[in-house]
Amino acid sequence: MSDVIGIIGGTGPHGHGLALRLREAGHRILLGSRDAVRAAEVVAELPAPVAPGGGTIEGVDNDRAAREGDLVIVTTPWDGFEGVGAAHAGALAGKVVVSCANPLQFVGGGPMPVRLPDGSAAELLQRLCPEARVVSGFQNVSAVKLGKLDAAVEGDVLLCGDDEDAVARVAALVTDIPTLRPINAGPLRLSAVAEDLTALLISVNRRYRTNASIVVTGVATGVDGGEG
Amino acid sequence: MSDVIGIIGGTGPHGHGLALRLREAGHRILLGSRDAVRAAEVVAELPAPVAPGGGTIEGVDNDRAAREGDLVIVTTPWDGFEGVGAAHAGALAGKVVVSCANPLQFVGGGPMPVRLPDGSAAELLQRLCPEARVVSGFQNVSAVKLGKLDAAVEGDVLLCGDDEDAVARVAALVTDIPTLRPINAGPLRLSAVAEDLTALLISVNRRYRTNASIVVTGVATGVDGGEG
Repeated sequence: MSDVIGIIGGTGPHGHGLALRLREAGHRILLGSRDAVRAAEVVAELPAPVAPGGGTIEGVDNDRAAREGDLVIVTTPWDGFEGVGAAHAGALAGKVVVSCANPLQFVGGGPMPVRLPDGSAAELLQRLCPEARVVSGFQNVSAVKLGKLDAAVEGDVLLCGDDEDAVARVAALVTDIPTLRPINAGPLRLSAVAEDLTALLISVNRRYRTNASIVVTGVATGVDGGEG
Repeated sequence: MSDVIGIIGGTGPHGHGLALRLREAGHRILLGSRDAVRAAEVVAELPAPVAPGGGTIEGVDNDRAAREGDLVIVTTPWDGFEGVGAAHAGALAGKVVVSCANPLQFVGGGPMPVRLPDGSAAELLQRLCPEARVVSGFQNVSAVKLGKLDAAVEGDVLLCGDDEDAVARVAALVTDIPTLRPINAGPLRLSAVAEDLTALLISVNRRYRTNASIVVTGVATGVDGGEG
């Protein structure tokens, strides 16, 4: 039986895009919102599975997503992390927790990384949930593409984390989405690099009128990038 | 006739790797060092061109590279930029100047970006050389691969700059190296994203025992990414 995946703050495009893709892979998803009614409404409007009989998506409150998820993905924006920590640090203790946030600001209409005192959004989440096994990832994956099940969502997912087993579990989740590839990119302290990359990709998207992803070349697919 | 390319601080692997590749494309290169004798020694030891009759590489002092280069590439490490500005800001005024620096530190043996007060090495160089038309690029291109003329050096070169014409000129230089592709990634204030990416790629290189590059997918080759 597949793990239950909790998604905190899952009603935005990134959260429900990931939910749709992971449902195709057969996972049971608890899509969380501060308001369980709102979560249920979002879930009711999601497109039907392409692979029916795969997994399920249930709209729940964030508390249930945190408590019942075997692995929990946080798609709350970084400036909501204080609230996530205050409400759910206990429930997340010991669990693999995925930080997807991009600390971004728009200056003069253009994207810019926000420099956080903790170094990155993922390190902020780790400080607020000290017993969680935080891994950062999925920041650079287009929410738009995730949500369109009739097309592939391609690219590499850069994973940063200090707990090798937790990184391996998130890497396995990435490979459940067939056209994405996990890259073990190093410790959590490198998360800002992956987070900030989103600002640059948004800039590229505007200039080239596209929906760009990143691929790391020279890395053999299937290599897990364990202790190196 | 091809432009003269000056390279300040060019005797390290990145500088002479770029010189070798640009010589193949027919450019006249002035490879600079603080010590012209040292520069001449480095040039004397460089491998012969694969495409003889293309360009030339001459070892010179940095001052001559700055004064005589139509376009000047700075491969000095970022912590030498103060010296570059003090010595060459006048000679670089009005010129297209390429910042290749990666502000990196090694913490506990692992790579980490260095946060600079100016935001990035490229913005530091721009402050120190206020009349130069600074473009950042080539940070993520492997010096090792640049130096091996018998193999392709693949990947995308992320270019950041505030002067669109200067970015276009550096993009043309990138396309002179056949297997590299320029990506117009936005304003100079996004340079730190490309600079910091090198720390992550070094981390990937260690884990996967490779020499990784970055590619932006979804960008049509040949599109110049002008005003978007």
